[in-house]
Amino acid sequence: MPLIATQTSWEDVAAAAQKHRDSTIAAVKPPVPDVPSDLPLNVTKLPATLLSSEEVSITESPPEVLVASLCRGTLSAVAVANAFLRRAGLAQKLTNCITELLPERALERAEFLDDYMAKNGKPIGPLHGLPISVKEHIGMAGLSLNAGFVSWADRVASADAHILSLLWNAGAVFYARTTEPQTLMHLECSSGLFGVTVNPYNRNLTSGGSSGGEGAILGMRASCMGIGTDIGGSIRSPAANNGVFGLRPTTYRLPMGGFSSSMPGQEHIVAVVGPLTTSLEGVKMFMKTLIDQKPWLTEPSLVPFPWRDTSSESLLRVKDGKRKLKIGIMKDDGVVRPHPPILRAINKIVSDLSSHSDIEIVQFPPYKCDDAWRIISSLYFADGGNAEASAIEASGEPWRPMSEFIIKQNKNLKTLTIPELWKLTSERNEYRAAFTNHWNSVSGSLEDDDLVDVVLCPTGPGVAPVLETARYWNYTSLWNLLDYPALVFPTGLACTPELDTKEGGYTPRNQSDEYNQTIYTPEAYRDAPISLQLVGRRYEDERVIEAMEMIANAASLPLKV
Amino acid sequence: MPLIATQTSWEDVAAAAQKHRDSTIAAVKPPVPDVPSDLPLNVTKLPATLLSSEEVSITESPPEVLVASLCRGTLSAVAVANAFLRRAGLAQKLTNCITELLPERALERAEFLDDYMAKNGKPIGPLHGLPISVKEHIGMAGLSLNAGFVSWADRVASADAHILSLLWNAGAVFYARTTEPQTLMHLECSSGLFGVTVNPYNRNLTSGGSSGGEGAILGMRASCMGIGTDIGGSIRSPAANNGVFGLRPTTYRLPMGGFSSSMPGQEHIVAVVGPLTTSLEGVKMFMKTLIDQKPWLTEPSLVPFPWRDTSSESLLRVKDGKRKLKIGIMKDDGVVRPHPPILRAINKIVSDLSSHSDIEIVQFPPYKCDDAWRIISSLYFADGGNAEASAIEASGEPWRPMSEFIIKQNKNLKTLTIPELWKLTSERNEYRAAFTNHWNSVSGSLEDDDLVDVVLCPTGPGVAPVLETARYWNYTSLWNLLDYPALVFPTGLACTPELDTKEGGYTPRNQSDEYNQTIYTPEAYRDAPISLQLVGRRYEDERVIEAMEMIANAASLPLKV
Repeated sequence: MPLIATQTSWEDVAAAAQKHRDSTIAAVKPPVPDVPSDLPLNVTKLPATLLSSEEVSITESPPEVLVASLCRGTLSAVAVANAFLRRAGLAQKLTNCITELLPERALERAEFLDDYMAKNGKPIGPLHGLPISVKEHIGMAGLSLNAGFVSWADRVASADAHILSLLWNAGAVFYARTTEPQTLMHLECSSGLFGVTVNPYNRNLTSGGSSGGEGAILGMRASCMGIGTDIGGSIRSPAANNGVFGLRPTTYRLPMGGFSSSMPGQEHIVAVVGPLTTSLEGVKMFMKTLIDQKPWLTEPSLVPFPWRDTSSESLLRVKDGKRKLKIGIMKDDGVVRPHPPILRAINKIVSDLSSHSDIEIVQFPPYKCDDAWRIISSLYFADGGNAEASAIEASGEPWRPMSEFIIKQNKNLKTLTIPELWKLTSERNEYRAAFTNHWNSVSGSLEDDDLVDVVLCPTGPGVAPVLETARYWNYTSLWNLLDYPALVFPTGLACTPELDTKEGGYTPRNQSDEYNQTIYTPEAYRDAPISLQLVGRRYEDERVIEAMEMIANAASLPLKV
Repeated sequence: MPLIATQTSWEDVAAAAQKHRDSTIAAVKPPVPDVPSDLPLNVTKLPATLLSSEEVSITESPPEVLVASLCRGTLSAVAVANAFLRRAGLAQKLTNCITELLPERALERAEFLDDYMAKNGKPIGPLHGLPISVKEHIGMAGLSLNAGFVSWADRVASADAHILSLLWNAGAVFYARTTEPQTLMHLECSSGLFGVTVNPYNRNLTSGGSSGGEGAILGMRASCMGIGTDIGGSIRSPAANNGVFGLRPTTYRLPMGGFSSSMPGQEHIVAVVGPLTTSLEGVKMFMKTLIDQKPWLTEPSLVPFPWRDTSSESLLRVKDGKRKLKIGIMKDDGVVRPHPPILRAINKIVSDLSSHSDIEIVQFPPYKCDDAWRIISSLYFADGGNAEASAIEASGEPWRPMSEFIIKQNKNLKTLTIPELWKLTSERNEYRAAFTNHWNSVSGSLEDDDLVDVVLCPTGPGVAPVLETARYWNYTSLWNLLDYPALVFPTGLACTPELDTKEGGYTPRNQSDEYNQTIYTPEAYRDAPISLQLVGRRYEDERVIEAMEMIANAASLPLKV
């Protein structure tokens, strides 16, 4: 750990953090291969040319396949940990997504697990030997806990975050810590400490944020399961941008104890933790493993809802032995029209699903999405952004462009009085109630047979944005305001300039819409994964996943779930 | 409805409200009997001498017995409604607990229900014909909604509160609206609009508050089921003071839409709604009837937890077919020692239960209760009490003594900045986490076999306080801070000066403790019911009720459950 003297410049602090990171990568054995000096924009295919075939096979397996092999003993935890460590070293060289690797801790843990298996003939828990990557602001005992601020670089976690303890109990191996942006309030990933994390499918694009390191490491397949956090899209934007699954669960289902935050006690909009993984099964494993351990027994903010296993008991309507699904389609939020690749994918999936006899499709009109943004972007920074500004300015590091965008250029931001805070909180509650009525009215009635199960919608106004252009949050933040569970999934399609030509003759509705139109040139987004979002009502996380399974089976997109 | 001209004095507004109340009582037929001019302190026996034997029999039945007769058709809804209307008129004359009766609405509704039963041969719902009394600030379409402020007397609810709609669906008859104190923030019941509500067991004592009208009407058996709200003890203090059951459920289980409040959007400490009833079965009926209607489908702040029927599936440990219960005993909160009657009752019940083979008793030491009060009494009024002060002063009505106590004399109250609010919110969260650890550590382990199921403790530092002395909230407000479900139950005992003599030689721990000792003279509390409180962990409302059933069966106190 670099210890920071008071007089050190911010550049020196950042250099020390990067030097530490590099030293942890240098400790990986065999050494992480060099990468070509002249990198292509799309670097996702490089690891397969630089790693052994066993390493490639391990790292490109979905988590449920890996765990099955680990639990059978056909793969050793050490071999798995080492393969992911080496690929993570490559991911750093290609996308700049790592704050530190943990080769010593990870291999010690993996050896322990292999010994355990040898002695006991059984796995230690349901995630026996599974490597999990972790966003930096989720505390690990003895390691830096800085929330993306240079001034916090010498803060050290005294204990593992609660969620890490539970995953550890289940057999996880923590091997990589990943980048996050200054303030944690970007849909990109740029900090004074570590610079900019880029998208492995197209290095001109952002990996997303704030769990941007997680997005890139997953996109690189240098992780098959990672932990992110989300208060406005911070799990979902990186998942979408990198073509993996990401779940923003309903609040108070997963433990949040032991995270760093510049605004502890801010509960007007509540952040959540959740998984990014390469498979839908991985999302379920993550949720079930944590919730089965009854985390509410030690973290009293959590609700004691058990995890419902929809493979044994469907949450959907079942008629004549068949599950029935009613999907609302919200293609456009009425404020900012999505780019052509998003519209192409959503049109294709709707067309695929429309002919399915067990799936009913209805239009789901947007509901006052501009008002939703006004409310949430005020409530994020009720202190006028002072906590963030102080943490940035304490070190002298410059404001990153996306920090300026969400704080300095945020016209809804002001220092609130308590009565103003209460008024905005009431407006938030009124919006939630009105949106619930909207959902019910689109459904037609409150009868089980009529209720819309899930809403299918974009994850953003486009695929992964060009760096420094991720300025429209509301396709994700809407669901934070409402506290609805939202699952991002890869359609299996990617932006293809030849197919995704610019629309002609469109008249923008407003400045944000115009900006979004301006930044679209098809070639700029080549190869960017196209992802979509599936949303359920509060505490219906399991229903969303079950619906996703039905959609994956029914749609003929290249979906690889 | 009295309409208030701008220039009207607060005394005129109050006189108009009282005149309206009296006119609604005068509309009851046959007329409500006169009461003796020279009232005894204990007026609970008077109604039996002034009403018909059928009226007495109806009004003294617990709700489940009434509903059974109503659903079988052996009692008509009209006869039941009229009996309660007449007894409520008496309760007003004896305790001043009514803001208005609703004879016209109630009888029209009862006639409708009787017709329904005659036509369909079945009840309309699980509460068919059950009269329910309602605290005034729970909105009823077209009626005043004033939260105890004279300046709000002309505010009128545009619709029924959500909870009333659901109870209506189930067959309820609303017939009485009940008093509440200025600000709703007393553990007594005194307002400029209606004056002081007194305790029917001893008219020198308070009926409690803020649901003080509900407490008195239940204590008078002029209601068998009423609706109160609780942010610091406002259901439990009146229930305890009047010897009936009162449940403060966990937050976000029962609908709160359509209530008046001077601080909408204040969510640092969340108020809840819940029942006061004359039977434990009544508590269950109330909860089940509401939650079975899935109120979360239209009120999105509610958590979609179904109501668990513990008669079919125990939430307690079951061994060899027998339920097992582990009770923590917290006799004293370590800050203010309870008066002798409370200690007598808790000692007696503990002694009764100790010999029971299926019940394990452990000591539950208090945990930093003074700190709990510091936090909650700051968070109640984050605006420095300005909203309350403005609402009081807008009419010129004087501050009631208990409003002065909790606002003007509250040394923890200040106008918070947003960072100060966040800091206190964090302290609240830390207290909650520490208390959870305390519960776990008293339990010994997190194993189901070890966990303490419920904590048995006082409901206050004494029985019903002498008027204007209810100045110690923490036996109830502690559980609001923690958001634990808390059930008040009557022990069946009453304060008996001959048994409950003052303790000699006690050295008070602090000013509050000294005050509490000073106000105790046994004779002052004669006949006051002795109640206790049973508390469970968050969202374990059903477990608390199941534990109560076991305790009621096991203890040999005069408990009448």
